[in-house]
Amino acid sequence: MTNSPVRTLVSRSGGPPVAKDAKDSYLVGLIGSGIGPSLSPALHEREADRQGLRYLYRLIDIDTLGVAPEAVGDLVRAARDLGFDGLNITHPCKQLVIGHLDALAPQAEALGAVNTVVFEDGRAVGHNTDVTGFAASFARGLPDVPLERVVQLGAGGAGAAVAHAMLTLGAELVTVVDALADRAADLAASLNRHFGVGRAVGAALDALPALMSHADGLVHATPTGMAAYPGLPLQAELLHPGLWVAEVVYRPLETELLRTARAMGCAALDGGGMAVFQAADAFRLFTGREPDSARMLADIAELAGPVGTPR
Amino acid sequence: MTNSPVRTLVSRSGGPPVAKDAKDSYLVGLIGSGIGPSLSPALHEREADRQGLRYLYRLIDIDTLGVAPEAVGDLVRAARDLGFDGLNITHPCKQLVIGHLDALAPQAEALGAVNTVVFEDGRAVGHNTDVTGFAASFARGLPDVPLERVVQLGAGGAGAAVAHAMLTLGAELVTVVDALADRAADLAASLNRHFGVGRAVGAALDALPALMSHADGLVHATPTGMAAYPGLPLQAELLHPGLWVAEVVYRPLETELLRTARAMGCAALDGGGMAVFQAADAFRLFTGREPDSARMLADIAELAGPVGTPR
Repeated sequence: MTNSPVRTLVSRSGGPPVAKDAKDSYLVGLIGSGIGPSLSPALHEREADRQGLRYLYRLIDIDTLGVAPEAVGDLVRAARDLGFDGLNITHPCKQLVIGHLDALAPQAEALGAVNTVVFEDGRAVGHNTDVTGFAASFARGLPDVPLERVVQLGAGGAGAAVAHAMLTLGAELVTVVDALADRAADLAASLNRHFGVGRAVGAALDALPALMSHADGLVHATPTGMAAYPGLPLQAELLHPGLWVAEVVYRPLETELLRTARAMGCAALDGGGMAVFQAADAFRLFTGREPDSARMLADIAELAGPVGTPR
Repeated sequence: MTNSPVRTLVSRSGGPPVAKDAKDSYLVGLIGSGIGPSLSPALHEREADRQGLRYLYRLIDIDTLGVAPEAVGDLVRAARDLGFDGLNITHPCKQLVIGHLDALAPQAEALGAVNTVVFEDGRAVGHNTDVTGFAASFARGLPDVPLERVVQLGAGGAGAAVAHAMLTLGAELVTVVDALADRAADLAASLNRHFGVGRAVGAALDALPALMSHADGLVHATPTGMAAYPGLPLQAELLHPGLWVAEVVYRPLETELLRTARAMGCAALDGGGMAVFQAADAFRLFTGREPDSARMLADIAELAGPVGTPR
């Protein structure tokens, strides 16, 4: 592993993932801050158990270790040396890890963020399955909705990933709205660089009423609705019948936003699908084996708790 | 983990091992040189599977990594940080690792060598299950043999561990014979410091005929008899009926020494028991669970190959 400039891994830019050598055991982990409640160990290990694999998913929490986010490079090198097959990477290390990798898959390079590292023949290759995971969930859950005018609430790390996914799926215009207007503008500028001028616009919160009145759909990518941040991320009256709503929050699966939207007759997609498909994509990258996403969707319904029961 | 002077872990000096918190998954590994053929992963994982544990045993080979034996301290720290529950340590790191541990169990301190590290509440504690493993195998396989005059061939690392075990089992005098007479003398001096003056003597190879004629038993602790070093470690005519013979080599299980000794009517103990009981003792330290050594003995008979079939 070197710190030389990262190279795009062209061979993974399309088509099915490359199968790794057959082997019967896998060691993977998650590096991040405050990850104790993560459902990733259960999602990965349950699917691996059904496939008869020896599979262990370890949480490597930088808070518990008392190290700075910048330690991610040392942790990645150590994991490679100690026989890990790969790692998931989460906040606040998704950007920091890039300087310590040997190559990047296209969606990770475009986004400038890595949530999955695969060790192959001593090389560390970065991927982003948040993008592919949201895209797969959306394509499955809201296959035929109009994508002309999409409003997205939230321009943080999750927001960047789902905006990339929406534009990859063919959204004509994504308007990113954030309480930090500069952050929204920066994300829009980055999206336009990758997808072409005019595909994304940044806006402040006060523009939301006008934007929503003309929107085909709403993507929600802020923490509001999680157990710790209950409530609605926007006024209920800004929703309207015919709008579709896609949620990133998945604990609980049924957020107040989704309940409100469904009551209004909106097509609505919960965040469980993104959580499952990002895990399924990482599982495929780690093992070269095809996960059963239907079984994993049933798992997350159980793990994330029934309607209104965050845990 | 600090490099402060090691402390003996009195609470583990006797009695049953302390049970760790109940948990359902264990990550362990082996650090050493040239360990690719090790049977430890299979011995540990088979027993764990029978107990319904999620258990992964990884090989961390310093040759493959291209690092010096002195890197063992960094590897131990990295393993602790990445969520390993413990490590086995083998040649050439058993002494080097000691400076990187927080405490030592008594047999490890007495021997000056550690083959097992357990991570407990962020502390790294060193044990030596080569000593306890050989002692358990001997007590099971040769329970009633005389222990007045024991001749041991080989004063290397394995020799040091089994000599400690023999004196712990009550051998009155262990005469250590080695082609390197100084090494034999040094081991004898160390044994006498720990077990009392007059319990051990070092000798050169030319003393072997006279020593064997008066010996109750022979402990063999050189590599001779392994697949790569076929043959007998001493002249067959130095064996005699009534002598017992204990072997450290376990691949193959039935060495030429054991075949020759059995043909002469000697009670003979193969090296598989030591391999199993050192693994079983490490398994107990890692998990707090009691391994089924009878099942593990059946495993090693299968893994180490039938008579005369090293693999």
